[in-house]
Amino acid sequence: MPRRYLDLTPLPEALAVMQEAFIPQNHVETVPLTLAVGRVTAEPVYAVHSVPRTDIAKFDGYAVKSRETLGAKDQQPLPLGACARINTGELLPPSFDAVVMIEDTWDDGGRPWIRKSAAPGQHIRHAGEDIQAGELVLPKGHRVRPFDIGALATYGITRLAVRSVRVGIVPTGSDLVPLGVAPGPGQTIETNTLMAEAYLTGMGATCRRYPIVPDDPDRIREAVRTAVAENDLVILSAGSSAGTRDFSRDVVGTLGEIVFHGIAVRPGKPVLLAKIDGRPVLGMPGYPVAAQTILREVAGSLLSWWGLSASPDEELDVRLSRRLASDLGFDEFIPVSIGRVSGTCWATPHPRGGGIQMAVVRANGYLHIPAEREGIEAGEDVRVRLTVPPATIARTLICVGQRDPALGELGNCLSDAGYLLHCCNASTIGAVLALRANTCHAATVALPETRSAWNDQVLKLLPGVDLLRVQVARTELGIASTGHLDLDNPGSLRFVNRPKGTPARALFDEWLDGLGVDAGGITGYNHEIRAHGAVVAAVSSGNADAGVCTAHMAREAGLRFTPLGYESYDLVIRKELAADKGVAALIRAARSSELRAFLNAAGRAPADGASGEALPA
Amino acid sequence: MPRRYLDLTPLPEALAVMQEAFIPQNHVETVPLTLAVGRVTAEPVYAVHSVPRTDIAKFDGYAVKSRETLGAKDQQPLPLGACARINTGELLPPSFDAVVMIEDTWDDGGRPWIRKSAAPGQHIRHAGEDIQAGELVLPKGHRVRPFDIGALATYGITRLAVRSVRVGIVPTGSDLVPLGVAPGPGQTIETNTLMAEAYLTGMGATCRRYPIVPDDPDRIREAVRTAVAENDLVILSAGSSAGTRDFSRDVVGTLGEIVFHGIAVRPGKPVLLAKIDGRPVLGMPGYPVAAQTILREVAGSLLSWWGLSASPDEELDVRLSRRLASDLGFDEFIPVSIGRVSGTCWATPHPRGGGIQMAVVRANGYLHIPAEREGIEAGEDVRVRLTVPPATIARTLICVGQRDPALGELGNCLSDAGYLLHCCNASTIGAVLALRANTCHAATVALPETRSAWNDQVLKLLPGVDLLRVQVARTELGIASTGHLDLDNPGSLRFVNRPKGTPARALFDEWLDGLGVDAGGITGYNHEIRAHGAVVAAVSSGNADAGVCTAHMAREAGLRFTPLGYESYDLVIRKELAADKGVAALIRAARSSELRAFLNAAGRAPADGASGEALPA
Repeated sequence: MPRRYLDLTPLPEALAVMQEAFIPQNHVETVPLTLAVGRVTAEPVYAVHSVPRTDIAKFDGYAVKSRETLGAKDQQPLPLGACARINTGELLPPSFDAVVMIEDTWDDGGRPWIRKSAAPGQHIRHAGEDIQAGELVLPKGHRVRPFDIGALATYGITRLAVRSVRVGIVPTGSDLVPLGVAPGPGQTIETNTLMAEAYLTGMGATCRRYPIVPDDPDRIREAVRTAVAENDLVILSAGSSAGTRDFSRDVVGTLGEIVFHGIAVRPGKPVLLAKIDGRPVLGMPGYPVAAQTILREVAGSLLSWWGLSASPDEELDVRLSRRLASDLGFDEFIPVSIGRVSGTCWATPHPRGGGIQMAVVRANGYLHIPAEREGIEAGEDVRVRLTVPPATIARTLICVGQRDPALGELGNCLSDAGYLLHCCNASTIGAVLALRANTCHAATVALPETRSAWNDQVLKLLPGVDLLRVQVARTELGIASTGHLDLDNPGSLRFVNRPKGTPARALFDEWLDGLGVDAGGITGYNHEIRAHGAVVAAVSSGNADAGVCTAHMAREAGLRFTPLGYESYDLVIRKELAADKGVAALIRAARSSELRAFLNAAGRAPADGASGEALPA
Repeated sequence: MPRRYLDLTPLPEALAVMQEAFIPQNHVETVPLTLAVGRVTAEPVYAVHSVPRTDIAKFDGYAVKSRETLGAKDQQPLPLGACARINTGELLPPSFDAVVMIEDTWDDGGRPWIRKSAAPGQHIRHAGEDIQAGELVLPKGHRVRPFDIGALATYGITRLAVRSVRVGIVPTGSDLVPLGVAPGPGQTIETNTLMAEAYLTGMGATCRRYPIVPDDPDRIREAVRTAVAENDLVILSAGSSAGTRDFSRDVVGTLGEIVFHGIAVRPGKPVLLAKIDGRPVLGMPGYPVAAQTILREVAGSLLSWWGLSASPDEELDVRLSRRLASDLGFDEFIPVSIGRVSGTCWATPHPRGGGIQMAVVRANGYLHIPAEREGIEAGEDVRVRLTVPPATIARTLICVGQRDPALGELGNCLSDAGYLLHCCNASTIGAVLALRANTCHAATVALPETRSAWNDQVLKLLPGVDLLRVQVARTELGIASTGHLDLDNPGSLRFVNRPKGTPARALFDEWLDGLGVDAGGITGYNHEIRAHGAVVAAVSSGNADAGVCTAHMAREAGLRFTPLGYESYDLVIRKELAADKGVAALIRAARSSELRAFLNAAGRAPADGASGEALPA
């Protein structure tokens, strides 16, 4: 039986043990100035020469002898005596001690005239005015900015000593294929090392990705040996868990010493840290979001400890929009979307789970729940870390509710107006409650067009709230079938249905009810299929005789279609927010011809006239 | 006579005219995923396939038939019946419908046992759980983050269409040499295009730097023609002013149409924008800080308008620590250092001027004074833009006063403790007033060790304030001479002196006073030299017979030395701030052996025992 790794180290303890085991290495690399942006200086940088090197003209004009200009005034202009035309930055000729700007002269009879005397030293830049030779330009530990480059070059610096950490990244897994190769059945594209390289390079590390190593202890051992010899830190991707093919622990155990295996963090638990030839080897979990957590919290901490990056994620104090449970004893990291609604910044969580990469893509930050907390209540003040520039939060619109392809397209339309649309998944009731608590800019609801749905599912829960209802899409739903629907004999049909709570299911139930047919007698009534497309596929392939789906899909597949009614996909907005510029842009985007073209292609455009109107609900 | 360009366009008008003249180009470039970090998506990105593609195991363990596990409980463990060992991510074999985690089993007699039944679908990741084929991954206009790369690769995306602007950067100037070539007399290293490339590349532009073009209208014309043909935007560095060698306006005037020449901005006034073959050609001023302003405010605005960067400088609301005057009608940009003192963020300005690049290197932000303001008062609330990550402000220590090499070294020592030391230049009185207003963490003062200096220059201005005085350096000063100092006959000596207000000058005056010598009788008493080193050079070379400088320098140069006394270079700190972690680190750094080693090498270490002690003043 494989080993259990449940002897979990708490995260803070794991980081402390790591820092003790791997003291800063002070590796230095010298790079040409043009490649130094974003790198961190390893040593203080001093000016090679003074700037300016000598006294020079500050402006275009004339070098003059100041005593010869005495007496010039508005009422008594004077021609310049001895003078020399001089351009900005040029050396003053000997015996001249001031500059008159070209703008302060005019030509009369081939000679320049002035109406103001020049003070000694006027418009001269003195040697060393900007910097003296040997003066400090940058301290050590400074992250080089683009404009620093110009100054360094001006001061005679052409190469910079910067902190350097060589990171070797070794992907393992017999089922992996590299990016660009189409995966066969049971194969997966190897993506975690791409992400690790992008992230750690951004921190200023020098990364090297090695070829994929199959699940073979001997080959893994060889790859680890090579990587340890060639790098300051080695990251072994996947294989650190407890599966039958997880050889990382055994391999690194024979080559060196295990520092820890398994930390109390979610996601990211099955992480492994070992010391081989004095160097750290980090076994990174295979789930992508777990891998991200370990890259950020463990590898990132080590590189910071080694002095690499001076640019941590920005923090923001916000309020949590809904309750989050968390297990005592685990440090948990949860992707959130943050937006400012009526002056308050709210963070709304996305689904957790090491495999849900889209949650991180959709999020603009994450929340850390420390091990000693069992959860965080709705409305509680929390500090989040951002994965976007803080300035973008003011342009972020939070939409809570049903996700729909139309919403993605709305986001595209909005990006032209400079706004970012963030969609946090929730049931209809979850969306309506978010609207009630005023934690989102808009709720999205998908409702059947029945007499009571809007009232029962939305209005009843929002007494006294003035609402706008903006129809985004309208979809005809019905039954796709290969032959005639014999509902006098429903047991003869093999059905596939849509999940409980969907508008399609509600319309189907209402229809059956109207016909007086007992749902219990329909074979497959409880066979729930999550996507309209999969319903059509089941009917087309003959696995089912009939199923509930959209009219557009049924017709495209050439199936017979029995209409049941319409689903309305709506934005619901508090009326008081309609004046908000971002919300106004959202409503405009819902009305745009760009969105309508997208919906037309899917047969889902709202009826003419009703299209995207913001109607008081 | 050269043309005057004083027909200045206000900045907001210039930007509006520019946007009207050059509508977004929507240039697109397709790059491999691994090069896409930091680029902005040109089109929405959709998933190529669903993830997971099929139902797979969520954990390492056993695939089971859930109905066969019914009845297992703590009091009644069961052996697993039909089961298959399965690893995370593997396909479920047909007929199995749940996964039991390896941690929830144990081995007994070669069979795995369980003490809990498995629910149907347990620990299975369903097809499309992360994303469905065709679902939106990223909207257009999204700046790609490192972790986005992993998700995109997972979803089958290998190349990305990103926004692209090709920028051609053409340096002009007969006096320029490229970086790496040692400049001869009157020559300058060409640095502005390096800086432009670094800055615009950071915004996501694709930059190309052309070779230096001498000040020859025909050659400039040829270079501009080539660059316009090969790029979307051309930046012509220098030559847009009104000097005799400024040909930019004439050249671009013959090739196309001038959009504006000269805008009411400081620094950055002599900027030129033209339209040639429909493309923008920007004449960037030669002063580096002016060039930076134009890159940021004009070129940067154009690229943002064209959709390039979604990452503007971060803003912060702070208070201005001292009055800033500004000319009505000019938009002015002033480098500032921002730090948080006793809970309030203060911005302290650095010197202005297009040539003072160090001001920008030393600053962590800048302040925009709009054209309609004549200045900003001390204590006024202002919004600044940051040139560093906002999180670093909390780790920034502001020091106001005399600059000194020892302070730079202090900054180096502090960087190991994670703090950034910012030094804003001020006279002793300016420093003391900043301390009084509590706008800095420490003042730095250089005082002669006389009976009255500390009292007169510091204490008198800070009645009732509890202070700490931390001596950083102690420097012996005196008179360096080639021969005997015959002060009975002072007229026979040619002197060089240090500027008024310096401790050396004060000690010299006190010494003369004590001897009863009349300063007026000393030749060269009023010949002020700004650097100690230059005094030594003047005496060594025989240009002067004697001069006031440091003991260390005089002795190193082998000159005779007559001691006058000591200068003390001190940090002055409000006692109430000493508990602040950063200030405590500053005091520790002043006591560190690292700093003492640096000071010893310059003969400036404080006396033993007194070294860096924080003494109540």
